[in-house]
Amino acid sequence: MYDPITIASRVIGSYTVFFTDDINKSFEEKSRDPSAVFLIDKKLTTFYTKEINIIKAKSRFLFLEINEDNKSIDYTKFIINGLLKLNVRKSDTLVAIGGGITQDLVAFVSSILFRGMNWEFYPTTLLAQCDSCIGSKSSINFSSFKNLLGTFLPPNKIIIYHGFLDSLEPTEIKSGIGEMCHYFLGEKSTTIFDLFGEYNQLFQNKKKLSPFIKKSLMIKKAMIEIDEFDENKRHIFNYGHTFGHAIEAITSYKIPHGQAVTVGINIANYISMKMNLIKQEEFLKIYDTLKINMPLFKLTISNIDDYMDALSKDKKNKKNLLGCILKNKAGTLEKHFLKLDKVLKGWLIEYSTKY
Amino acid sequence: MYDPITIASRVIGSYTVFFTDDINKSFEEKSRDPSAVFLIDKKLTTFYTKEINIIKAKSRFLFLEINEDNKSIDYTKFIINGLLKLNVRKSDTLVAIGGGITQDLVAFVSSILFRGMNWEFYPTTLLAQCDSCIGSKSSINFSSFKNLLGTFLPPNKIIIYHGFLDSLEPTEIKSGIGEMCHYFLGEKSTTIFDLFGEYNQLFQNKKKLSPFIKKSLMIKKAMIEIDEFDENKRHIFNYGHTFGHAIEAITSYKIPHGQAVTVGINIANYISMKMNLIKQEEFLKIYDTLKINMPLFKLTISNIDDYMDALSKDKKNKKNLLGCILKNKAGTLEKHFLKLDKVLKGWLIEYSTKY
Repeated sequence: MYDPITIASRVIGSYTVFFTDDINKSFEEKSRDPSAVFLIDKKLTTFYTKEINIIKAKSRFLFLEINEDNKSIDYTKFIINGLLKLNVRKSDTLVAIGGGITQDLVAFVSSILFRGMNWEFYPTTLLAQCDSCIGSKSSINFSSFKNLLGTFLPPNKIIIYHGFLDSLEPTEIKSGIGEMCHYFLGEKSTTIFDLFGEYNQLFQNKKKLSPFIKKSLMIKKAMIEIDEFDENKRHIFNYGHTFGHAIEAITSYKIPHGQAVTVGINIANYISMKMNLIKQEEFLKIYDTLKINMPLFKLTISNIDDYMDALSKDKKNKKNLLGCILKNKAGTLEKHFLKLDKVLKGWLIEYSTKY
Repeated sequence: MYDPITIASRVIGSYTVFFTDDINKSFEEKSRDPSAVFLIDKKLTTFYTKEINIIKAKSRFLFLEINEDNKSIDYTKFIINGLLKLNVRKSDTLVAIGGGITQDLVAFVSSILFRGMNWEFYPTTLLAQCDSCIGSKSSINFSSFKNLLGTFLPPNKIIIYHGFLDSLEPTEIKSGIGEMCHYFLGEKSTTIFDLFGEYNQLFQNKKKLSPFIKKSLMIKKAMIEIDEFDENKRHIFNYGHTFGHAIEAITSYKIPHGQAVTVGINIANYISMKMNLIKQEEFLKIYDTLKINMPLFKLTISNIDDYMDALSKDKKNKKNLLGCILKNKAGTLEKHFLKLDKVLKGWLIEYSTKY
């Protein structure tokens, strides 16, 4: 497998991503650590019964009911109560096994329990493996506010096992691919075309995703080592996200995040084209590549007002200007603040009639 | 007044303690900052109506019901809801006015809301002014577990106004003095005797506390700049606290913290004497000094088993050994791990018959 990737962190010094082919061996080893307390997405027991039995036989563990509603303060209270019953101590290590929500919950609990604990992470979704597992962020919803709360605490160790991807739905793979796109398109490289060149095979043989996962993490690593706390330069990773989040918002989060991002990238590129930042050929070349990864969602004249309204509520806006990341002539990404006016609406209407 | 004290922090770079004689001017200035959102211990409105009206006239504010029960996750939810109604944004600054519990709540909310916000602090109790306002720690209770949760996030700015001490009960002044003692006794200086030399005047003229507040903060500053996250050297500040916490535990936290610490220091010194770390004269000299600041609590043969039991539950214990800080021959403090056995119990019984 790949060499480990070590990431510098202002919070914990550094942490490392390991790639493994042998999850049983990895679970065996970690289970022998008496300080390990496993927090596992309960859904995984169906697919990985034998593997998880290794943990159950030797270690303290807690199964989590993972869903968006449980990404809450109240569910962190449930987790902390469960950990107390397992006699958790500050010197213990919480070991998360699951996707992004599991990661958010365990990172948040690790941030506040005993004023901070060590934690490790086995990401099991493509989104978590190629993106969220590094970067230090945790997010917790609060009443109707998505990701209002959170902290910065990276895991001390991440172990990526491609076999976890076998249990994913095609939409979950598509979602991860969408997230990878926003990394690859920020670079002057052909990785995006390599990825889509193998598109169908990626769903058949999940191991083929590994080099792209590694590439995504390397791109993200370079940025988060400069701007771990998302104060300025890291903002470029909002590419596709501002326009994607608004799609998620108007569809009540029914569209997988990374697929909304795929459309979001396309809309961002369309606006880049309208602003003469990129040429039409470039927009079309990328659109032709991305379109296979898009969800069954269309921007239409009937949802355009809702969409503008969702854009106007973006957290990154400043003084009623839409803060968003656009592609430029040099093939890199840059931040723009756009008026939420008739011009923008006109572009979006034009986009909706074509794509 | 005194020059400001700037403290280096690994979390936020640095932060500064200012001393002011003019709270109205300070409130006026801060109220003009549109990013300020004030979080105020409601009890203060009785004593400082005019001063707080300055804030109410110009700023966003929220009154907090401050009590130990509200040092909870549920109350932080209440605060966050209140802040959302005030349209709080990540770029805002929360401004806490109150004592240690207010500090804990606002520091904790600032740590988790929007993945971290700036906050500032007007400490209004002696304990908060001389001790807790610096050092980065926040603490939140969780069910029956005191201070189980928390974070490290110092305020960006602290403003100390001696006039807030005028509204305190004598026991609150005593509590602050007890906390100061544990700083002064860790140093080879005569500050402790200077403090007790003026003991009665300190209650009459609160301004006389200022030099001792400053001295406490300078001692704490030196240590927290070395060990902000309380990983090793800062442990010496548990001097008097291990034995004091156990008193608080067996009296259901009815004894003011700093007064319990005063007795805790005396018990630690007694054990130091029994272990030949300090001479009897030194124990007696300090005891004669401290005794005026002790609460109406006596260790007795009837509560000694509860006391041993409380000591055995201390978080800093390792493998059933009591982790505590004792005074040594050199006049400094050092960490010890004591067996919770008949010898220790014998010393405590002996202590209880004498003091």
